[in-house]
Amino acid sequence: MTTTAPPSALLEALGREIPADRIVTDADVVASLAHDDAEWAPVGAAAVALRARTEAEVSHAVRVCADLGVAVVPRGAGTGLSGGANAVDGCLVLDLSRMSAVREIDADNLVAVVEPGVVNDDLKAAVAEHGLWYPPDPASAPWSTIGGNVATNAGGLCCVKYGVTRDYVLGMRAVMGGPAGYGSAVRLGRRTAKGVAGYDLTALMVGSEGTLGVVTEATLRLRPAPTQPPRTVVGAFASLVDAGTAVAEATRRGLTPAAFELLDRACLQAVEDWKHLGLEAEAEALLLARVDTPGAGGDEEAQALLAAYDVGGPLFSMVSSDADEAEALFAARRLAYPALERLGPVLTEDVCVPRSQVPEMLRRLVDIAARHDVTMATIAHAGDGNLHPLLITPPGDDAAREAAQVAFEEMLDAAIELGGTVTGEHGVGLLKRDGMRRELDPLAVELQRAVKQTLDPLGIFNPGKVL
Amino acid sequence: MTTTAPPSALLEALGREIPADRIVTDADVVASLAHDDAEWAPVGAAAVALRARTEAEVSHAVRVCADLGVAVVPRGAGTGLSGGANAVDGCLVLDLSRMSAVREIDADNLVAVVEPGVVNDDLKAAVAEHGLWYPPDPASAPWSTIGGNVATNAGGLCCVKYGVTRDYVLGMRAVMGGPAGYGSAVRLGRRTAKGVAGYDLTALMVGSEGTLGVVTEATLRLRPAPTQPPRTVVGAFASLVDAGTAVAEATRRGLTPAAFELLDRACLQAVEDWKHLGLEAEAEALLLARVDTPGAGGDEEAQALLAAYDVGGPLFSMVSSDADEAEALFAARRLAYPALERLGPVLTEDVCVPRSQVPEMLRRLVDIAARHDVTMATIAHAGDGNLHPLLITPPGDDAAREAAQVAFEEMLDAAIELGGTVTGEHGVGLLKRDGMRRELDPLAVELQRAVKQTLDPLGIFNPGKVL
Repeated sequence: MTTTAPPSALLEALGREIPADRIVTDADVVASLAHDDAEWAPVGAAAVALRARTEAEVSHAVRVCADLGVAVVPRGAGTGLSGGANAVDGCLVLDLSRMSAVREIDADNLVAVVEPGVVNDDLKAAVAEHGLWYPPDPASAPWSTIGGNVATNAGGLCCVKYGVTRDYVLGMRAVMGGPAGYGSAVRLGRRTAKGVAGYDLTALMVGSEGTLGVVTEATLRLRPAPTQPPRTVVGAFASLVDAGTAVAEATRRGLTPAAFELLDRACLQAVEDWKHLGLEAEAEALLLARVDTPGAGGDEEAQALLAAYDVGGPLFSMVSSDADEAEALFAARRLAYPALERLGPVLTEDVCVPRSQVPEMLRRLVDIAARHDVTMATIAHAGDGNLHPLLITPPGDDAAREAAQVAFEEMLDAAIELGGTVTGEHGVGLLKRDGMRRELDPLAVELQRAVKQTLDPLGIFNPGKVL
Repeated sequence: MTTTAPPSALLEALGREIPADRIVTDADVVASLAHDDAEWAPVGAAAVALRARTEAEVSHAVRVCADLGVAVVPRGAGTGLSGGANAVDGCLVLDLSRMSAVREIDADNLVAVVEPGVVNDDLKAAVAEHGLWYPPDPASAPWSTIGGNVATNAGGLCCVKYGVTRDYVLGMRAVMGGPAGYGSAVRLGRRTAKGVAGYDLTALMVGSEGTLGVVTEATLRLRPAPTQPPRTVVGAFASLVDAGTAVAEATRRGLTPAAFELLDRACLQAVEDWKHLGLEAEAEALLLARVDTPGAGGDEEAQALLAAYDVGGPLFSMVSSDADEAEALFAARRLAYPALERLGPVLTEDVCVPRSQVPEMLRRLVDIAARHDVTMATIAHAGDGNLHPLLITPPGDDAAREAAQVAFEEMLDAAIELGGTVTGEHGVGLLKRDGMRRELDPLAVELQRAVKQTLDPLGIFNPGKVL
């Protein structure tokens, strides 16, 4: 990966209103900012990076880029898994991670106003001091920024009960283009609990991956912090399909735990090899439900989950007896991804199917991986039907990598066939563009193109992503 | 109100693919279909009405109207309060109330697929047979259709805890125009719990009041039905501001009842004069919270609400002791609107403010009504900060009507000043267009216009509404 020499016209124009210490031209640093965490997504050569500190700097940069026809690729922490923050040749990488202020915490109205670069867990910590909670919890929460979460409509573990990022974005400020004029900062949405004044452009911006403008501020809905530690309901199963059956049964019975995760044998093995937790040796799948309903209601919910597990015929199941045990039982989930990354480059799938199809989808994933001789480990937000098969290839093994890519596409097709989607929460970026076109009504894609063309007629906002 | 003679070209073209019994030309019937329930919103003279039975008929009608340059004004039950379904001169009124099938109830995935004309309460009844619940509950639920609810992003009582219509629409089919081609039926969204494949055009369509296309099918998220009857927590207060203080305190303490309603003296009086329930004679305001948390958790929540009421200094407060009492205590809320309609034409406001501003907004409403000598009664979804001051004028009193209209606009300005919105849940329609322009960033209005122009370049979908 190389960077092209920064065009002097771009540097000169940026420098007119932006202090030099924000502008990055060092090729190695620019290259390090030119991609996210998506394995195998193509990365272009960025011309320059800008570490913006203010909305005015973002506005100026967008105006300059519009004038010069330079693409703007916004990024936060770069933890994305679809290539949505990957550079295109000659672009400006717009790094928003230095705009990280929590501007306001309005405890009376359960609202926070933040800059896009604030890290998800930092926001959680800041609002916790007021007895409040910002629920969306992608696995990247310790590193990923709210701007990136908004751009991808990030989900996470707790969205089975508490919803995704879009459900928490009441309004925003964004530097837009097109009819607003490139570089204009626009206020969208509201800060009231409800509101229907005009088209919901806030909802349109959430999940648009920086292709319609650059979010410079978000007004977020908060919840009261939970007052009691959660329980964990664990179940070990002899097959993935048994575990999937238990999940489908829990949904059918209307149970909504605060997290409902599935780990397969490969995940458990990787964690066990690394951390020696003494995980169930016979189990092909582990289900972990988190119950945060307080008091007796929580006890009832935990018991009802155990009863749903029984339909899948578990090898073993139990409810945690205290907070420490609840955390310990959940440890395998937290450790799974880093444990797997030790084994080689991981290509992360993100399919989502109707929940009753989870057993069938798990069956197909196993079949596809076997047919292509691909090493697969599956983590799933099972309660949402959102499955993350992780395809692991030995470093440098090109044949394995090609096989994994074929398997990846077949998994997308299987999800579509079962009435699902090619991306539950990671976004389209570069990796799911073909899959998205296979999933959606072609006319819906046309309408999306038209919206993009209208709001960004110059095509400078994160070109090539999503559409 | 008169209707123009239907242009023969339109009738002839419609008749080519649509059976004659769907097409309404009788002037009186057309006129009865040409408006919603908004007092004083202008109504144009429709050319003809079509009672469509199928998506194919909607498609054909939209194609014909696009060819002939005829406006299409979609409607369901016509219970809207902003004039969003009011005819424009020469238009086709597209009545969707006969497309009322519940196509599918997928209990395993908590999803229903419905036609737009199904009545909200009929859908509730249909899913209840499967132990399921469709939460959005506008006051019009016994009559209003899901299509209308989707068009206005309808709220209701339970959205303080369970969210609004947009939170329940996973996907839809819609007959669109522009880049899709006028008359094309497009599938938008998904039926999985999560999904981020492309721009969220479903969220854009919800609340767009028929100005971007005609919804012909909705895929809706359901919840398990509550298993226990709710409790009612009632509080009577000596002033509106005291009641508002109690509401603000409950929000501050993180309490989220399943409904949190406020009625003022004028509402209570109207109900009492009509039904003689024996309501608290001294009270200037009544607060009614509904608690649906089951078991001991619900008891705790009810007691916590009583404690929050205490901060407002109630004249009287109590928790219902059984299901019958819970319903009886809520009766005043259900009866308030019909009781007030007995007094004269009602102009319904729909402002929403940050919840901490509820006491101040109530203060301003009283002041504005007094200054203009307008009879006002206030119903509020207080827990959302969504206030419905109802302006009542004696029938035929033009001076009173003009005073009420001035007061109406001043109330919008007060809401904007307090960081609120001119419409919490009823929609912009015709009555809030000016207010919306005062509320929103002018650039945001420009972007909305551009989206409208892109998706409906001929401007035939419900022209003059929202924008």
